[in-house]
Amino acid sequence: VEALFVGVDGGGTSTRCVVAGETGKIAGRGRAGGANAVSVADPSANLLAALLAALEGVDRSRVAGGVFGLAGTGTSRPLAEQAWRAAGLTGRLWVVPDVLVAFTGATAAPDGSVLIAGTGAMGARIRARRVVRRADGLGWLLGDEGSGVWLGRRALVAMLAALDGRAAPTELTGPLAAAILGEETEAADLQALVAAVYARVAEAGPAWLATLAPLIDTAARQGDQVARDILREAARRLARTARVVGAVDGRQEDTRPLVLAGSLLTEQTMLARLVRAELGERATWVPARDGAAGAAALALRAAFPPEDPRALDGHLALIGQDGP
Amino acid sequence: VEALFVGVDGGGTSTRCVVAGETGKIAGRGRAGGANAVSVADPSANLLAALLAALEGVDRSRVAGGVFGLAGTGTSRPLAEQAWRAAGLTGRLWVVPDVLVAFTGATAAPDGSVLIAGTGAMGARIRARRVVRRADGLGWLLGDEGSGVWLGRRALVAMLAALDGRAAPTELTGPLAAAILGEETEAADLQALVAAVYARVAEAGPAWLATLAPLIDTAARQGDQVARDILREAARRLARTARVVGAVDGRQEDTRPLVLAGSLLTEQTMLARLVRAELGERATWVPARDGAAGAAALALRAAFPPEDPRALDGHLALIGQDGP
Repeated sequence: VEALFVGVDGGGTSTRCVVAGETGKIAGRGRAGGANAVSVADPSANLLAALLAALEGVDRSRVAGGVFGLAGTGTSRPLAEQAWRAAGLTGRLWVVPDVLVAFTGATAAPDGSVLIAGTGAMGARIRARRVVRRADGLGWLLGDEGSGVWLGRRALVAMLAALDGRAAPTELTGPLAAAILGEETEAADLQALVAAVYARVAEAGPAWLATLAPLIDTAARQGDQVARDILREAARRLARTARVVGAVDGRQEDTRPLVLAGSLLTEQTMLARLVRAELGERATWVPARDGAAGAAALALRAAFPPEDPRALDGHLALIGQDGP
Repeated sequence: VEALFVGVDGGGTSTRCVVAGETGKIAGRGRAGGANAVSVADPSANLLAALLAALEGVDRSRVAGGVFGLAGTGTSRPLAEQAWRAAGLTGRLWVVPDVLVAFTGATAAPDGSVLIAGTGAMGARIRARRVVRRADGLGWLLGDEGSGVWLGRRALVAMLAALDGRAAPTELTGPLAAAILGEETEAADLQALVAAVYARVAEAGPAWLATLAPLIDTAARQGDQVARDILREAARRLARTARVVGAVDGRQEDTRPLVLAGSLLTEQTMLARLVRAELGERATWVPARDGAAGAAALALRAAFPPEDPRALDGHLALIGQDGP
């Protein structure tokens, strides 16, 4: 019987799981809420939910191994192990940085770099499918500069500073107030807004702040200067993060991929455009595709010696590519 | 029998309580940990502890009323009422903004303004002993710009950005790592530092960040440019907060007091010097003294009609002043 491999990509906002066979053929997929240990209220339950959904109708005894891509691998390992056991799996489990599965889900190349801007933000240099250098990715309190959480917080700070007279007015106020208070937005009382934000963050975790990011994109497109300045500052910081890990070395002949991951960089956002402009034109940008498939590819690769063609073929099949 | 009045000043780091008689004579004092509803783990227990300490040996049936000065009066009122009842008190209870008791604890004047920079930061305009305008004071996530929590967070961000190569090195690294990890500081591993900070904040609340503020002052005095830049930025933001509420109107004849409160402004810090320089020389700066006495003064004043001399005399006695 063909062995099965599990790949999990646990982000700040959603967790995706893929179960695949030795040839890279997908046997199941699952999805659940975020799995970041420091910004999500119940990451372990979401890991398990994504696993169980992907394993529906699958013979679990065939699962030979799994790779979980998670932020903060140190603190997240127990969560992954807990979910693995709770799902009734006994194969070997690896926990690797989420940036690595973003990379292996986008390219079969062994070397390159990743810049993520989703709920969180991080840059990483990859060599032989290992993270050899990283910058930022320090979480909602200490970094993740240019991420959705960072953008959401900046926008709220700008709105409140405008409301109490410390800073210039911004068109962000209306949409943000509506997002914070729901329907009852007629009287955008500052104290009510502040209390509601703290309540939301206490309840849903700081990852909630990232849900505000699209409002900043919209306001910036409509010409709001405050929103534009926030996005420019985010782009500068993300470009710095990418440069620090050596993602852009300026040599013309450099063809190592720079994988752009996270919804803020993979979707057609103003931030994505600004980040590309900051980093300069570069032929080897690769948009991230499927981190869970990248995780499953790592699990599959671990089952075969490197020279075995099934390792590369399975990886390529999983990420939907024809050749290296 | 002379009535007694209770005053409580609940800050981010400590809660102070004063019990006083009709003439402003102090009958008891108490002190406990912080009472900020959003940045302290157990504010209600600290309010009660300060109350009970001040009421030791006092006949509680004589207590005619009390004033609690608390941040976020909306969310804090239930905490105050809970502590009041738990202490066996039945007199009338008022909950007022902490900035107001900082003001009335420093001056018997009815009008003026306050700038606080302690665990949190806020500016307020006071008219007839009521807060008529405020700026910032929005808490650890959304504002408190220039506060101890803001400084601590900025310093950590600067240290970590230096450690992963995104920003210039800083002499803050050693002292901050020692404060975060305790004794085991030889190998200041970035991931260990990050995990320890999140653990500290989860355990002690964001107010813990303010305990790092003195390290920034020390590093700045020793010439560290990163620390100096953080303090300069803090001073600019605090000055903006003060200006917005009309604390400095530029008229020479203006003699309304500007009360400087919070440990970062009442102690001989570099930040206090920078804030004064930002705001320009001004003859009516008043250092904050005893916010709990200011709260007791408000409770005492509420017991007498405004024209009754006991209101002013009691207030002056409580704050240790001879005349207006």
